[in-house]
Amino acid sequence: MSNQSPVARSRSSACCPSLLETPLDEDQSAELAKVFKALGDPVRVRLLSLIASRAGGEICVCDLTPAFDLSQPTISHHLKLLRQAGLIDSERRGTWVYYRLVPETTDRLAAILTRPAGLPLATP
Amino acid sequence: MSNQSPVARSRSSACCPSLLETPLDEDQSAELAKVFKALGDPVRVRLLSLIASRAGGEICVCDLTPAFDLSQPTISHHLKLLRQAGLIDSERRGTWVYYRLVPETTDRLAAILTRPAGLPLATP
Repeated sequence: MSNQSPVARSRSSACCPSLLETPLDEDQSAELAKVFKALGDPVRVRLLSLIASRAGGEICVCDLTPAFDLSQPTISHHLKLLRQAGLIDSERRGTWVYYRLVPETTDRLAAILTRPAGLPLATP
Repeated sequence: MSNQSPVARSRSSACCPSLLETPLDEDQSAELAKVFKALGDPVRVRLLSLIASRAGGEICVCDLTPAFDLSQPTISHHLKLLRQAGLIDSERRGTWVYYRLVPETTDRLAAILTRPAGLPLATP
């Protein structure tokens, strides 16, 4: 069920320079905003954290749901949004679906938010 | 007009560990989600990029507005949301307001999204 976003897929620096270094154009901004929007919810931040920090690198949906006071369909909806943003991937094995981080996407986000050396900063 | 978020203010690793390393609790997730939500809009991503990449480290609102096909009040609204999230700061000098990046916030976000060494990843 791979569904990586362009932010995750592209390794080209022309695609995703640090937003602190080069003014992004409208398309780059829209693409990035989609991924940030997926993270703009406390449940999804916590889900991503639970998935990414799991020993072994993946977690069964059956182990995610009990961590929240939310219904299974609500959890599934949040997981779907994280997957559509390219932040996680999933695989069905037997009865259960297993989720794992797509590290390329978080790596790209971290790079995009990293200050380039020598970035001039105003002195207040 | 300093209005930094707890994400920016805190330097404690207990406050903001990498979300890829340690499961975040509800409070940490909610705090982070607020900042990501502020970035979950194409106009705000582009505004942040324009502010951060400006030579000299700051930019007059009068130089931001012409970059968008949006009204001044709309731009001001988006700038306010970025400021409330602790991503930018502002200072009025004479007629104009000048904006600059709060690098502590983007540094913290980058750190939170950075994979710790040795993070186990599942092999698909």
